[in-house]
Amino acid sequence: MATAENEYTLDTVRETLVRQEDTIVFGLIERSKFPFNSQTYDQNYLQIPGFCGSLVEFVFTNTEIVQAGRYKNPEENPFFPENLSLSLVPSYPFTKFLHPGAASININKSLWKMYFHDLLPLFVASGDDGNYAQTAASDLSLLQAISKRVHYGKFVAEVKFRESPQDYEPLIRSKDKEGLMKLLTFKSVEEMVKKRVEKKATLFGQDISLNSSDDSKGKQKFDPSVASKLYEKWVIPLTKEVQVEYLLRRLD
Amino acid sequence: MATAENEYTLDTVRETLVRQEDTIVFGLIERSKFPFNSQTYDQNYLQIPGFCGSLVEFVFTNTEIVQAGRYKNPEENPFFPENLSLSLVPSYPFTKFLHPGAASININKSLWKMYFHDLLPLFVASGDDGNYAQTAASDLSLLQAISKRVHYGKFVAEVKFRESPQDYEPLIRSKDKEGLMKLLTFKSVEEMVKKRVEKKATLFGQDISLNSSDDSKGKQKFDPSVASKLYEKWVIPLTKEVQVEYLLRRLD
Repeated sequence: MATAENEYTLDTVRETLVRQEDTIVFGLIERSKFPFNSQTYDQNYLQIPGFCGSLVEFVFTNTEIVQAGRYKNPEENPFFPENLSLSLVPSYPFTKFLHPGAASININKSLWKMYFHDLLPLFVASGDDGNYAQTAASDLSLLQAISKRVHYGKFVAEVKFRESPQDYEPLIRSKDKEGLMKLLTFKSVEEMVKKRVEKKATLFGQDISLNSSDDSKGKQKFDPSVASKLYEKWVIPLTKEVQVEYLLRRLD
Repeated sequence: MATAENEYTLDTVRETLVRQEDTIVFGLIERSKFPFNSQTYDQNYLQIPGFCGSLVEFVFTNTEIVQAGRYKNPEENPFFPENLSLSLVPSYPFTKFLHPGAASININKSLWKMYFHDLLPLFVASGDDGNYAQTAASDLSLLQAISKRVHYGKFVAEVKFRESPQDYEPLIRSKDKEGLMKLLTFKSVEEMVKKRVEKKATLFGQDISLNSSDDSKGKQKFDPSVASKLYEKWVIPLTKEVQVEYLLRRLD
C-alpha cells in the first residue's frame, strides 16, 4: 500500500513532473486549435441572470463546483475557492504528506493573469470561430494542468526538506528567501527540462504521416518554442516560488 | 470569408478528421493516467440532493449545461440533450452546410455504452486512487472527442453527396442501406487511418528523453494498439453508420 513515505520520493515526484509536461504540451496543442475568440473573455458577452463575468469565468467557476471532489486531493488547487463547497463530497484517505501550512498557498490568481495576459497571445491565432465554450474548456484544462504543475512545488519542497532538513532549517528560521531560492536552483536541470519540453512539443505537435521520413516535413500544429518559454518564464520560477513559500511555513 | 462551399470540402474535412485523431489519442493517454476508479460510475457514490445518478453522469450533465453554447455548432452533439437549454446563448452565424435532417442524428447513447462497457476496460488499469472528479473530466473530454469524430460523418456524407449526387440518389430513394455502406467503404483508406492512429499513439505515448535514441526504449504510457482497435471496432464503423443515416434523410 502507498504510504506517505513511498508515495512521494524524489524519484516519484520527478516522474510525476515529467508526466505533467505531456499534459501541458497536449493542452497547449489543443488550445491552439481555436483562434483567440475574444468573446470568451468579454464581460458583456454572457447574459446569464445572477452571474456577472465573462464566459471563461462562468466555465471555471461552475466546473469547479461540478468537480468539487477534485479539491479534496492536496495536489489540486481551485481558482475560485470562494464558490466551492466540499461538504457533499464523500471523503477519501489521500496521503497526508505535506505540512498543514501548504493549504494556504494558492497562486492561481497570478497564474490566471499570466495565462490570459502573457501566454495566450504568444501562441493563439487572432480571430473568431464562434467556439467560445470549447475555447473556455480548453483554457480550463490547460490552466488546471499548469496550476497543478506549479503547486506541485509543495511536494518537491517537502521531499527535499525531508532529505536534508539540516540544509533548510537555518534558512527557514532566518526567513532567508534568497538563500532558499539558491538552494532550490539547479541551472543544468532547468535547462534539461526546457529542452525536453520543447522536444515533446515538437514531437506531439507535428503532422504524423505513415511515411516516417515525411513527419519532420509536415507543418507543425504548434510552435514548440512556446512550450519552453512557458517553462522558462513562468512554470519553473513560479514552482520555485511555491517551494520557497512552502518552506517558509515548514517549521510553523 | 468562409462559406459553406469553401469551409467544407473533401480536403478540409479530411484534414479535420486527421487533426481529431490527435485529440482522441491525447484523450486516451490522459485517461490512462488514472486507474478505473469505479466510484466514478457507482450510482450510490454521490449524495447530491435532487440528483440521481453516478458522478460521471453528474459531470456530463452539468458540464453540458455550463458549456451550452458548444451545441450551437452543428459539429457538436450533446449526450444529455434533454437537460440542455440554448435560450441564453447568444447566436453565432455557424455555416449552414448540412441538410436539416442532420439535427435528428445523435448516436451518443451507443457511444456512451461502448465507451464505458467496452473501451475503458481495454486500456485502464484496475484500482482506485480517489481522483474521481478528474477521472470523470477525462472521460468527458475523450468521449466528447470520439463523439465529435463519429458525428463528423454528417459532414463527410454531405461533401461526398455534393461531389456525386448521381451515385447516391438512387440508393437513397430505394433506402438501400447496404448499397450506401458499400459506396462509403474504402478498405485501403480505413487501413491507413488505423495504422496512422496507432503510430500517433506510439509517438505521443512514449517517454521522451533528451537522448533521442532512448525514446523508443522508454516505457509506453499507453498501449498503442488500443487506439487502432478503437478506430477499427467503433470509430470507423459508427462514422459510416452516421453517414448512412444522414444520407437516408438527405432527400427529405
